[in-house]
Amino acid sequence: MKPPEKRGAKSGSGELLFDVVMDKVVYGRNAVLELLASDPEKIEKIYMQFNTGHNKLKEILITAKRSRIPVGKARLEKLGEMAGTTKHQGVCALISSVRYYRLEDILQKPRNTNPLIVILPGLNDPHNVGAIIRTAEAVAADAVVLTGSKGAPVSAAVHKASAGAVSHIRLCKVRNLAACLRMLREKSFQVVAADMHAEKNYTDIDFRLPSALVMGSEGKGIEPQSREQCDFLVRIPMAGCVESLNVSVSAGVLLYEAMRQRLG
Amino acid sequence: MKPPEKRGAKSGSGELLFDVVMDKVVYGRNAVLELLASDPEKIEKIYMQFNTGHNKLKEILITAKRSRIPVGKARLEKLGEMAGTTKHQGVCALISSVRYYRLEDILQKPRNTNPLIVILPGLNDPHNVGAIIRTAEAVAADAVVLTGSKGAPVSAAVHKASAGAVSHIRLCKVRNLAACLRMLREKSFQVVAADMHAEKNYTDIDFRLPSALVMGSEGKGIEPQSREQCDFLVRIPMAGCVESLNVSVSAGVLLYEAMRQRLG
Repeated sequence: MKPPEKRGAKSGSGELLFDVVMDKVVYGRNAVLELLASDPEKIEKIYMQFNTGHNKLKEILITAKRSRIPVGKARLEKLGEMAGTTKHQGVCALISSVRYYRLEDILQKPRNTNPLIVILPGLNDPHNVGAIIRTAEAVAADAVVLTGSKGAPVSAAVHKASAGAVSHIRLCKVRNLAACLRMLREKSFQVVAADMHAEKNYTDIDFRLPSALVMGSEGKGIEPQSREQCDFLVRIPMAGCVESLNVSVSAGVLLYEAMRQRLG
Repeated sequence: MKPPEKRGAKSGSGELLFDVVMDKVVYGRNAVLELLASDPEKIEKIYMQFNTGHNKLKEILITAKRSRIPVGKARLEKLGEMAGTTKHQGVCALISSVRYYRLEDILQKPRNTNPLIVILPGLNDPHNVGAIIRTAEAVAADAVVLTGSKGAPVSAAVHKASAGAVSHIRLCKVRNLAACLRMLREKSFQVVAADMHAEKNYTDIDFRLPSALVMGSEGKGIEPQSREQCDFLVRIPMAGCVESLNVSVSAGVLLYEAMRQRLG
């Protein structure tokens, strides 16, 4: 393990290899396998050599995919730069400095009597993810939930766009969105998802109840099996000649409607 | 004049010189001077050679500054690439394809019985400007007003971030913000500016009245002489550990509160 440091690792040519704000790089086949078994949610991304013929590398690849951890390929010299040594055995795991909470722990010690949780499945743009985290903290939401391998990792760009809110809000990473929504509904949350084709207006929701707000990606929305776990699909009315809003603006409109109802 | 085309001009090295979506380049000292006299608001930016010793170039420089048109320096070969000829006489004016309306014309033919106008003084980030234009069109605002030389020009990045809304909303460019606000107040508009230090909550405003919403830049806010022309400074309440929202999110929260009141 390298000593803690905060930087985006750069390749020899100055090109940014990754921009995860990280404390640690774990390298070596056994070390990465152990980490995958014990603390997979700590891993932001795994980098591997191009030739993954070695059995343990194959095992890492399969286990990472099963845990929905992003895996990238890198040349040996780039792996050496990440690890700070040539003894990386063809694999490096990047550990984010971001502390992730378990959803169960957040629900046991909520910030609000009637918790408000923001769920971001598959958002890619770090500016949007950061701006939504910033807004979630502004309304004192209980947590922001990010999902599996799709979506932007909590990178330096997300940190910056969040204006520091990443350090205040409790972040949570889940592998299976549908299971997460099911669990929230069992805990008496209403699950509300933004959908431009929905019929219900967002102002018709009683946001004073324990609520989980799902903001899908701008283009694709939410996958069908997760959509089934939603209590309400809501739309933001459009009066002009555009079909939708920027997703971070949509999240702001919805979260501040919740805030308005809760303050009022 | 070159034939109409939509592109960002590139220098020989492939570096983007400017990214204004433009129809035309006007070149030559007399042509640019005439344009400055007749239609200054059409000019997005003027590029000049480094040596501005020539009297007419000096005159262009002074007139442009008085009209708050941005002026940049460029090498002769770059000016040649913009103009498409070497006969540019050391000066090129970039004309945007964006059609700007006069505020008077917008007020004479408003879209809403009680008009809603969004004013963006000194916003620099094209993503924010574009997202706000998109939201303004989504609530069918009457116009978006941009100010003078400060702030992002309506570039290709603004177009993209607006998701096409630039082509639907009426855009307006004013030189003097305080004078613009004074005129709006004379026409019975209430002028409301977002300010993180304000005491009044944004939900306490009656947005059903004819309203002008001023969104200053995130860091600096609004200049003092314009602040004096505001009827209300309003804040968006912050419950968590951040001081403010992203400016396009703030604009969304305020514009949709207006929409909510107007629909309700």
